Amino acid sequence: MSKFWSKVIRGLAPYVPGEQPKDRKYVKLNTNENPYPPSPAVLEVIREHTGQDLRLYPDPNGDILKTAVASCYQVDKNNVFVGNGSDEVLAFTFIAFFKQEKPILYPDITYSFYPVYSKLFEIEALTIPLTTDFQINLDDYPAENGGVIFPNPNAPTGRLLNLEQIESLLKRNTASVVVVDEAYVDFGGVSCIPLVENYPNLLVCQTLSKARSLAGMRIGYAIGAPELIDGLERAKNCFNSYTLSRLAQVAGTAAMNDRLYFETTCQAIIATREWVVRELEQLDFEVVPSAANFVFIRHYNRKAGELFCELRQRGVLVRYFNLPRIDNHLRVTIGTDDEMKELIKQLKAILSGG
Amino acid sequence: MSKFWSKVIRGLAPYVPGEQPKDRKYVKLNTNENPYPPSPAVLEVIREHTGQDLRLYPDPNGDILKTAVASCYQVDKNNVFVGNGSDEVLAFTFIAFFKQEKPILYPDITYSFYPVYSKLFEIEALTIPLTTDFQINLDDYPAENGGVIFPNPNAPTGRLLNLEQIESLLKRNTASVVVVDEAYVDFGGVSCIPLVENYPNLLVCQTLSKARSLAGMRIGYAIGAPELIDGLERAKNCFNSYTLSRLAQVAGTAAMNDRLYFETTCQAIIATREWVVRELEQLDFEVVPSAANFVFIRHYNRKAGELFCELRQRGVLVRYFNLPRIDNHLRVTIGTDDEMKELIKQLKAILSGG
Repeated sequence: MSKFWSKVIRGLAPYVPGEQPKDRKYVKLNTNENPYPPSPAVLEVIREHTGQDLRLYPDPNGDILKTAVASCYQVDKNNVFVGNGSDEVLAFTFIAFFKQEKPILYPDITYSFYPVYSKLFEIEALTIPLTTDFQINLDDYPAENGGVIFPNPNAPTGRLLNLEQIESLLKRNTASVVVVDEAYVDFGGVSCIPLVENYPNLLVCQTLSKARSLAGMRIGYAIGAPELIDGLERAKNCFNSYTLSRLAQVAGTAAMNDRLYFETTCQAIIATREWVVRELEQLDFEVVPSAANFVFIRHYNRKAGELFCELRQRGVLVRYFNLPRIDNHLRVTIGTDDEMKELIKQLKAILSGG
Repeated sequence: MSKFWSKVIRGLAPYVPGEQPKDRKYVKLNTNENPYPPSPAVLEVIREHTGQDLRLYPDPNGDILKTAVASCYQVDKNNVFVGNGSDEVLAFTFIAFFKQEKPILYPDITYSFYPVYSKLFEIEALTIPLTTDFQINLDDYPAENGGVIFPNPNAPTGRLLNLEQIESLLKRNTASVVVVDEAYVDFGGVSCIPLVENYPNLLVCQTLSKARSLAGMRIGYAIGAPELIDGLERAKNCFNSYTLSRLAQVAGTAAMNDRLYFETTCQAIIATREWVVRELEQLDFEVVPSAANFVFIRHYNRKAGELFCELRQRGVLVRYFNLPRIDNHLRVTIGTDDEMKELIKQLKAILSGG
């Protein structure tokens, strides 16, 4: 603590990302990265643009990337906002729409950055408990609110809401912005982007870090009515005019345009998840139904914190959250088949005391 | 204006960056970019790292880049913060140190992003007028303040303060953070980084967008006492864990390490500036003494707004700020010798009515 820190900074508990270890090589199943490399078209376009133009500022509006996102989802370019990872997009969302008189709403178990943003921007938040089987029940969300945000599928549970459930919330919650954070939607969910046309208060956030294998480039976007996009642009232009580098813009554009590669790798991850779930269940894990590129699991006999440590010693990194209600769960990213075989092998050894 | 916008967003007047035109080819002297390409070592390292690891998140701490910056200025790695352009570093600075009870201080004519940050983060600000010849007089800065920030050299004037003037402020202003924004210091100024050791409330911000020819990659940093760096890390980790892409981190590292290229290109720009100033004076421009990669000029007979438009029509872009006290000035970036010859040629044609 420093006497020079502002009051708001003193009171913060920053978000802690999953570790990016440098000490040794791990089977890295802790930060929900894609096990497959970016599309070859992405790497090619980055190399092509690695030249003298890097001396020039990027397009502050990210027009080429917006156009590619718009084309991908058949919306208009002015329905699209782009940012330096979806975390930045979410941060601008909190400033632009959630700084209201009434508290915002999100699940008690969810992406742990939401409470951090609330604190940073001094926004009151009300957490709504998941059901005992970790479902979001939108009927529990009170009508009087300054905004609603939840991931779909939820993190770290992986559980999905269907479009009817979300549309039912949108029909009654018309006075505040509803943000659906679809970071993981491509691994088995259905996007609610088509609902944007009918609900001017719906904002859908997505990222290129997961299904498009570009966590290292930092690219995210939001889709919503032009008046919401304008609000995000105002927030961004009061913070940093040029949030996306020249290379991020061309890389993101190529990634959005290579639909076949995207669909192929998503399908491969879904197929891997299916057999991993069966293997885990045979090892006496309870697996929360997942529509994401991770599974949220609990062993019937063994403590999650211990399993986390033992796996780490054996070279397998998973994520453990020491938080109420989920301190006996592990979140395990779906990697390649080989990586998941190694996970299962090490779990078998641990559980047999080997 | 949308009913969904928060109050703070409604009240904002976002920063407007210099245009990045796409309609035609210009001699682009409007955004203080470096006319020379990035170091070849930078382009090489980007190409080398354009591979499958882009699927993985970057190091959230930016250790390699911090190490390179630290080595360049002979400070410790924990004296260094890195961000997505110095604008982002400045934004975090406002959150971390300037959200105080007392107003912060900055010049009336200065980088126009400071009032935008103040408004965004709801920070009261007091502007201190420059002298009539556009100098910052730090003796005018009252002792009671929530923080002080100014660029050195100042923008858009280009005027420099010397280290004695800054140290004199630091000696009496010990209770709040003093930020010296050195975006342009390498073109003729002396950095106050060596003062960091003795003044725990001094934070020095720099960028790789200007002297290191990397505006397109978005990289900035701050140097200060570890307790200030920790404050910035807290702000950043409550906003976006991974602000710098993998490619930005390696590019920035290579740029900091190639000292010879950096010094050679800076010297070239300084040499160009010297003859351009003489030419402009011969064309009846008053030129504010500049230690930056731009000059701030006023013609004795012609209106700046008109000159701006006429230059634009003739394919030369400069920057015009329609703001009190400087609405008859133009800010002109120093480009290559050829670009500046074209500027002088077009100015001669305009002024002779040709």
